[in-house]
Amino acid sequence: MTDDSDADGADADGGSDPEALADRVADGDLRLYELEDHADAETAATARRLVVERDTGVDLSATGDYAFAADSADSNIENLVGAAQLPVGVAGPVTVRGEAADGDFYLPIATTEGALVASVNRGCAAISAAGGATARVTKRGMTRAPVFRVDGVAEGAEVAEWVEENEDRLAEAAESTTGHGRLQSVTPYLVGDSVFLRFSYDTGDANGMNMATIATRAAAEVVEDETPASLVALSGNLCTDKKPAAINAVEGRGHTVTADVTIPRETVEERLGTTPEAVEEANTRKNLIGSAKAGSLGFNAQAANVVAGVFIATGQDEAHVVEGSNCITTVEARDGVSASEASGGSGERSSAGELYASVNLASLQVGTVGGGTDLATQSEMLDVVGVAGGGDPVGSNADALAEVIAAGALAGELSLVSALASRHLSSAHEELGR
Amino acid sequence: MTDDSDADGADADGGSDPEALADRVADGDLRLYELEDHADAETAATARRLVVERDTGVDLSATGDYAFAADSADSNIENLVGAAQLPVGVAGPVTVRGEAADGDFYLPIATTEGALVASVNRGCAAISAAGGATARVTKRGMTRAPVFRVDGVAEGAEVAEWVEENEDRLAEAAESTTGHGRLQSVTPYLVGDSVFLRFSYDTGDANGMNMATIATRAAAEVVEDETPASLVALSGNLCTDKKPAAINAVEGRGHTVTADVTIPRETVEERLGTTPEAVEEANTRKNLIGSAKAGSLGFNAQAANVVAGVFIATGQDEAHVVEGSNCITTVEARDGVSASEASGGSGERSSAGELYASVNLASLQVGTVGGGTDLATQSEMLDVVGVAGGGDPVGSNADALAEVIAAGALAGELSLVSALASRHLSSAHEELGR
Amino acid sequence: MTDDSDADGADADGGSDPEALADRVADGDLRLYELEDHADAETAATARRLVVERDTGVDLSATGDYAFAADSADSNIENLVGAAQLPVGVAGPVTVRGEAADGDFYLPIATTEGALVASVNRGCAAISAAGGATARVTKRGMTRAPVFRVDGVAEGAEVAEWVEENEDRLAEAAESTTGHGRLQSVTPYLVGDSVFLRFSYDTGDANGMNMATIATRAAAEVVEDETPASLVALSGNLCTDKKPAAINAVEGRGHTVTADVTIPRETVEERLGTTPEAVEEANTRKNLIGSAKAGSLGFNAQAANVVAGVFIATGQDEAHVVEGSNCITTVEARDGVSASEASGGSGERSSAGELYASVNLASLQVGTVGGGTDLATQSEMLDVVGVAGGGDPVGSNADALAEVIAAGALAGELSLVSALASRHLSSAHEELGR
Amino acid sequence: MTDDSDADGADADGGSDPEALADRVADGDLRLYELEDHADAETAATARRLVVERDTGVDLSATGDYAFAADSADSNIENLVGAAQLPVGVAGPVTVRGEAADGDFYLPIATTEGALVASVNRGCAAISAAGGATARVTKRGMTRAPVFRVDGVAEGAEVAEWVEENEDRLAEAAESTTGHGRLQSVTPYLVGDSVFLRFSYDTGDANGMNMATIATRAAAEVVEDETPASLVALSGNLCTDKKPAAINAVEGRGHTVTADVTIPRETVEERLGTTPEAVEEANTRKNLIGSAKAGSLGFNAQAANVVAGVFIATGQDEAHVVEGSNCITTVEARDGVSASEASGGSGERSSAGELYASVNLASLQVGTVGGGTDLATQSEMLDVVGVAGGGDPVGSNADALAEVIAAGALAGELSLVSALASRHLSSAHEELGR
Repeated sequence: MTDDSDADGADADGGSDPEALADRVADGDLRLYELEDHADAETAATARRLVVERDTGVDLSATGDYAFAADSADSNIENLVGAAQLPVGVAGPVTVRGEAADGDFYLPIATTEGALVASVNRGCAAISAAGGATARVTKRGMTRAPVFRVDGVAEGAEVAEWVEENEDRLAEAAESTTGHGRLQSVTPYLVGDSVFLRFSYDTGDANGMNMATIATRAAAEVVEDETPASLVALSGNLCTDKKPAAINAVEGRGHTVTADVTIPRETVEERLGTTPEAVEEANTRKNLIGSAKAGSLGFNAQAANVVAGVFIATGQDEAHVVEGSNCITTVEARDGVSASEASGGSGERSSAGELYASVNLASLQVGTVGGGTDLATQSEMLDVVGVAGGGDPVGSNADALAEVIAAGALAGELSLVSALASRHLSSAHEELGR
Repeated sequence: MTDDSDADGADADGGSDPEALADRVADGDLRLYELEDHADAETAATARRLVVERDTGVDLSATGDYAFAADSADSNIENLVGAAQLPVGVAGPVTVRGEAADGDFYLPIATTEGALVASVNRGCAAISAAGGATARVTKRGMTRAPVFRVDGVAEGAEVAEWVEENEDRLAEAAESTTGHGRLQSVTPYLVGDSVFLRFSYDTGDANGMNMATIATRAAAEVVEDETPASLVALSGNLCTDKKPAAINAVEGRGHTVTADVTIPRETVEERLGTTPEAVEEANTRKNLIGSAKAGSLGFNAQAANVVAGVFIATGQDEAHVVEGSNCITTVEARDGVSASEASGGSGERSSAGELYASVNLASLQVGTVGGGTDLATQSEMLDVVGVAGGGDPVGSNADALAEVIAAGALAGELSLVSALASRHLSSAHEELGR
Repeated sequence: MTDDSDADGADADGGSDPEALADRVADGDLRLYELEDHADAETAATARRLVVERDTGVDLSATGDYAFAADSADSNIENLVGAAQLPVGVAGPVTVRGEAADGDFYLPIATTEGALVASVNRGCAAISAAGGATARVTKRGMTRAPVFRVDGVAEGAEVAEWVEENEDRLAEAAESTTGHGRLQSVTPYLVGDSVFLRFSYDTGDANGMNMATIATRAAAEVVEDETPASLVALSGNLCTDKKPAAINAVEGRGHTVTADVTIPRETVEERLGTTPEAVEEANTRKNLIGSAKAGSLGFNAQAANVVAGVFIATGQDEAHVVEGSNCITTVEARDGVSASEASGGSGERSSAGELYASVNLASLQVGTVGGGTDLATQSEMLDVVGVAGGGDPVGSNADALAEVIAAGALAGELSLVSALASRHLSSAHEELGR
Repeated sequence: MTDDSDADGADADGGSDPEALADRVADGDLRLYELEDHADAETAATARRLVVERDTGVDLSATGDYAFAADSADSNIENLVGAAQLPVGVAGPVTVRGEAADGDFYLPIATTEGALVASVNRGCAAISAAGGATARVTKRGMTRAPVFRVDGVAEGAEVAEWVEENEDRLAEAAESTTGHGRLQSVTPYLVGDSVFLRFSYDTGDANGMNMATIATRAAAEVVEDETPASLVALSGNLCTDKKPAAINAVEGRGHTVTADVTIPRETVEERLGTTPEAVEEANTRKNLIGSAKAGSLGFNAQAANVVAGVFIATGQDEAHVVEGSNCITTVEARDGVSASEASGGSGERSSAGELYASVNLASLQVGTVGGGTDLATQSEMLDVVGVAGGGDPVGSNADALAEVIAAGALAGELSLVSALASRHLSSAHEELGR
C-alpha cells in the first residue's frame, strides 16, 4: 500500500521530500522525532527509514511496506518507521455460550510460534464437539492507584478515612474528565508514610487505562486540595499495571472471566487422543503442584500464548499479556454421576465418564474501542470476532471479547495438557512393545 | 506485496484457485487447515481469507496485504490468513556499554500504545547524554522441567539421587538431539509422588525453547528406562514457561541481565525534568513499596512495555513477555561522594550529585536465530540492532540483544518514573502559585 | 505448684490413681486420650506422663511441674502431659501513641533466642527517647472462606450473584451463632466449578477464629439450602489461615496495624550507634530489594521474632505468627525539611536530620479473651500490658494489643537494621585503620 | 521450683536482695537490664518481677513459678521475669519409616488451640494403622546472605565472578569460625549496585543460624578485603530468615523433607470417617486451587499448627515457623491399580482403593543441640522423641526430628482435610433425610 516511492510530494521548502528531510537529520538540523513537524506522517516515516537505513546499512523495504495509513497511527506510535508484520492464523470457529458472546467465533491469533494455532484449533474442535464453552464475566474494573506522601501513620489514617467518606467527591472529579468512565470504588492502603488509593472504573467497551489515568489525576488533585496528602506518583503499583501481582489475581483488573466445558470421554479420546483421567493427572501435577512448587502466580499451561496471540491480532495492549495471562486451569475426570454420590457411594466409575475443564482469568484487560483497535488489520480482526467498536449495551463488546478469549484460552489448555498427557500414553504403548 | 488478486494460478484440478478452494471448504469437502495440502501457501491463505470473509462478511484486504512470503512463515503459523501489522517506531540511538553490545543502538519498538516510543526515547537520550548504560549478562540457560510419577517419597528420593549421579548420561542423551545445545545442569525437586527435573541448557544464539524440549524428551526417556519414574508431562511448570514464577526470578531463565547508568544532576534536570531525589522517592514508594504491598513479582514501572515492543519488532516469542518483564528497578540519589563517607560523615549533600538507576531482568528469553527472527520485518529490525543471525562467538548476538533490551528497559524506567515524579513537582509549583 | 505426688486421690475403682491408670493404658484397657474419662484432669495428666515415662525411659519431672491448673487448660489441649516452659523477658517500657493504646507499655517476650529481648529493648529505648511510636489499626476482620462445588461456571456465577444479593440472610444465620461476632462482608470468588466465599467478621476482643468458623458453618448451610452449591470444605484456603498468602497482605486479616516513629539524628547515633542514612540504606537493600529478589511476602528484618515472642507470652495462637508477621518495614533519612522542598530545593542536607521508620502489619490476629488468654502465665502477661479481658468499648483491648505489638515490631526492626548498618560502619572504621 | 519467697539471700551490699534491687531500679539507680550485674540470675529475675509488679499492679506468681534454673537460660533470654507455660500434649505414637527416624514416635505438641492435639492424634492413628509414614530428608543447608554495595553492574559482575572462583577461600574463612559447620555453596545474585551472596552450610545437628551468621561474617570480610564490594548488611534477606520467601520454597533452607503414606480405603473410612475420593476433592479445591487463588506460598491445611506445636515443645526457634511451615500437601484417591493402567484402561475403580497423601516441607529449620534445646522441659521432650543432643552420625538427630515433624504434619493434614470432607458427607446425609 505504501513504499518509499510514494513519498514524492516535496513542497516549496523541501521539507517534505524524504531524502531532503533525512539529510537535515544527518546534518543535525532536525531531530528524528521532529520529522512530523515538517511533513505528513507518511513522508516523515519514509524519511526516518532513510535515516536508519543510512546509519545501519539495512534495507527496510519490508518494514516500509505497511498496510495502514501512517497518519491513522499517530495516536499509537512515535518515531514511526513502518510496521512489524506477524503472521495471523485463525483457530476455530469455537462455540461459546457466554452472556455477551453466544455463537461460533473465529479466534484470530498473531504469532510466530509454530504449532500454536494448530494446538488451539484442536482444543476449539473438542470444545465445539462437546457443545461449546460456557463463559461468564464476573467482575469489571480498570484500576489506577496513585501513591501519596503523608507525614506519618496518624495523618495517613486520617487521609484514608477522608477518602472513604468522600468517595462521591472523588467520583465527581474523576467522572468530569470522561464521558464514559464511572468510578466504582476507591480503596485506601496505608504503608508507613505512603497512602495508596486504588481507583476502579467501569470503562465500557474501552480498555480504559488512559481514561482511568486521566480521571484519577483529577481525583488526586481533590485529595491534595482537601487533605495533607501530597501526590508522589500517579501510579503507585497497586494498580497493578503490566506486572504480575497478586492484588490483580485476587481483586481482578479489567475483566475477570471464567470459562468451562464438559467433554464426553469419547470426544476426549477422539479429539484429544487421551483420557479424562490422564488429563486430570497431568493438570494436577503440572498446573497445580508444579506451579505451587515454582512459586508461580500462574497455574496454567499456556494461557499467555492465546492471550498474546489474540491481543496482538485485535489491537489490545501487548504488555497487558503479563496480567492478562493470570490464569488458573482446573481439570476433573468426572464419572458422569454427581461427585457427591460418587464420594459416598459405591465407587463405580462409569465407563462413559467425562472431562470437566475450566480457566479463570482474573485480570484480562480488553477493549474494542480506542488503543490499537482502529488500526487496519486489527479492526478487521475485531470484525471477524464480531466485536468491533462500541457494544450495545455499552460494554457488551468488550465482555464478548473477554468471553471469547477465555474460551480460546480453555482450548489452548485442553490441547496442550492433553498432548502432554498422551505423549505419556504413547510412550507407555511403546514400552508395552518392548 | 500480495493481495487477493495475486491468487490467480488455478491449476488443472482447480485445487489452487482460491475461490474454488473456498467453495470446497464451504461444502465440507475440505477443512480449513487442509488448504495447504491443495495449494501453495499464498493461495491457501487467500482461500482461507475468502472463507472467513464469506462467513463473517468482513473485508480482509488489509490483513491480506502482507509483506512476507507466505511460505516463509510455514514454521511460524498454521491456518494463515495474513498479517497483523503493528506500527514500529525507533527509540534511541542509546549508548550501551555491554560485553557483547558496545556502541550506539536503535531500539525498534512495535506497539499501539501512544507515547511509549517517545517515553523510551527520552530515557535513551538521558542515558546517552550520561555516557551510556552499562550492561552485563550474568547467567544464561533455557530450562525445561518434566514431571514424573513415582510410587512415593522413597522411590522419588532414589530417582532424584540417580539423576544427580547420572547427569552425564542425561547430557549425552539430551545433546544427541541438537548440534548447538549443551546441558548445563539438572536439578531434581521431589513433591510427594511427583519428581520434577529442571534441565537447563546453553542454547547459543537461539531462544532455545524447542531445542530444550526435544533434548529433554530424549533425556526423559533415559530416566524412564533406568528408573521406576514414569513421565507424566514433558513440562511440569517448574521450567517455568510463560507464567510469572519466582523460580525464574531467583534462578533465572533465558538471559539474566542487569543494566545501570549514573546521570549527573544537571542532565536529570534538563532531560528528565526532575531531580535525583524525586526520582528516588517515586521509585522507592512505587516500584519497591507499592509492589511489595501488591504481592507483585515485578518491581518496576513499565519493563513489560519495552520488552514487549522490542520482542514483537524483532521476532521474539511475544508470550515470553510474561517472564521476560520480570524486573527489579533500583534508583539512588547519590551525593557524588561515596555513600559510606556520607553515612559516617558530615551529611553534606553535594549540589552536584547524580542519579544512579538500574534494572535487573532475571529471565529474558531472546534469540537471534530461529523462531520469528527470519520473517521479513523482524529480520530487518534485528539487522537494525546489528544482531541478526548467529553471533561470533556463538551466543554473542543473543547476549547483545539482551544487553540492548536491558538498556531500553532502563530508559523506559527512567523516563516514566521521572515523568511521575515531575508531575508532582509541576503540581507543587502550581500550588505555590495559588 | 503440681507434681506427681499431688495425684494421690485414688478412688474406689482405682481409676484415679495415676499408676493404676497408667497400667490400664499399658494393658490396652484404656487409650491414652481416654484418661480424662476416668480421672480429674491433673491425675489424668500425671498418668499420661507415667505412660510416656515408662515407654521412653525419660524423666518428665520438669514437664510435670506446671503452674496452671490442669482442668483450666481443658479447652486448650488434649492428651495433656504438662507444660512447655519458655523463658519470658520484658522489653520496654515503650511509649505508644495509638488510638487504643496510649502510654508506656512493657513488652513481654517468650523466646529461646538469645539477644532478642535485648535487641527489642534497644529499639524500645530509641522509640521512647524520640517521644514514642504512633500506631493505628486501620482494618479489622477475622475471615473464613468455605469452598463449594457447583456444576460449572454458569451455576457458579449465579451462586455468587445470589450471595451478593442475600448478604443480610447470611449475616442473620451467621450472627445467630454468636453473641459477639458481626458479619462485615462476604466476597465470592469463582474458579471453575469451585465457589469460594470469604466471610469477614468483627469479633471484638476475641481472635475470633472459632467464632468465625461456627458462624460461617451456619451461613454455609443457608447457601446450600438456597442455591445449588454444595459445601466441600468449610475452609477453602482463601481465608487464609496460617499460610502466607497475598490475599491477607492485600485485604488484611485480623488487625491491620501500622506504626511509625521519627527519631532525631542524635538519638539515632547515641541509641542505635549509626546514622539515619545508613539505616535507610540497609533497609532499602535488605528489606525492600533483597526481599523482592527472594520472591518474599515479607519485607522486614525480624517482625516474626517479636510477633512470635509476644504471641506466646500472651496466649495468642502461635501458628498465627505465619501471617501475623506479614510486615513491610520502611525507613527514610529525612532532612528535617519537607521532602518536597528538598526535592526541588537546594539539596542542602540539614546536619540535624532525622530517621523515619514504619512497620505495616497487614494481618495480625490477636485477642484478649478466649484462646490461650486465660491460662495462668498468659493472663498475667496480658495484665502487664494492661489489656486482659474484654475492652471498653468492645474491641479496644484487642486493638491496644495490636498497637503495642506493632510498636514492638518497629522496635525490633530499628534495632536489627541499625545493628546491621553499624556493623558496616565499624568495619569501615577498621578499614581506615589498616 | 521457684517463687518470690525463694529470693531471700540478701548479701552484704544488699545487691542480691530482690526488694532492694527493685528499689534501686525504681530510683533510677539501676536499669532493668543491669540486674544480672548485681545478683545471680534467679535473684535478678525476682527483682525484675517485683519492678514490673509494682509498676503494673499485677501479681506475677505464675510467671515466677518456673521449672528451669534461671542461670541455665542466660543464653536464651535477657530481662528474664519467669516463664510462659503452654500446655503440652502428646499425639501418637506415630510410625515413621525414615532414614534417620525408624520406629514409633510420640509427637509432643505445645499449644493453646483446643482440638489440635486430638486432630493430629487421629491422623497419627490412621498413619500407624496403615503401616506408617515414609519420610526422606532430601536437602540440608542453613543459609545466610549478606548484601554488599558495589559501584554498579560492571563491578558487581566482577565481584560475583571472583566469588565463584574463590569459593575455597571463602570456605576456609567461614569454617575457621566453627568446629562443626561446613560451607556447601555460595550463590551470587546481582541487582543493580547490590550484590547478594547466599552462603549455605551443613550445620550437623544444630539449627545453625548463629553458626552460619558468624561464619558468613568471616567470609564477608574476605570479600571486602579482596574485592571492591562493601558490606551493607550481614543479612540481605535472600537467606531468607523468618519471612515467607519463594527462594526457600524453591532452594530449601534448613531441612527439605517429604513424607507420605498410603492408606487402605477401609482405614480411611474407619479412622478418618470419609472416603479417599472426598479427601482428594477437598485437598484439591482447598489446598491447591484455593491456595492458588489466594496468592499463597503455602499449599496445605494446617502444617503451621504442627510445626509450631512441636517447635515450641522441643526448643526450636518459634519464629522459624514462618518458613518451617512452607508445605505442599498432595492427596490422590488411588484405585489400587497403577494410574497408567487406569488412564488407558477400562476405568473400573476398585472398591478396595486407597488414599495416597504427602507433605513436602521445603525449609524446616530444626536442631537437637543449641538454641532452646537444653532447657528443662524442652530437653525432656527431645528425649521423648529420642533425638536429644548430637546424633551419631552427626546430623542424624536433626534429620530424625525433621522426619518425625514431617510425619506429624502429614497426620495433621490427613485429619483436618478428612474432617472438612466428612462434614460435607454428614451434611449430605442430612440433606437426604429432608
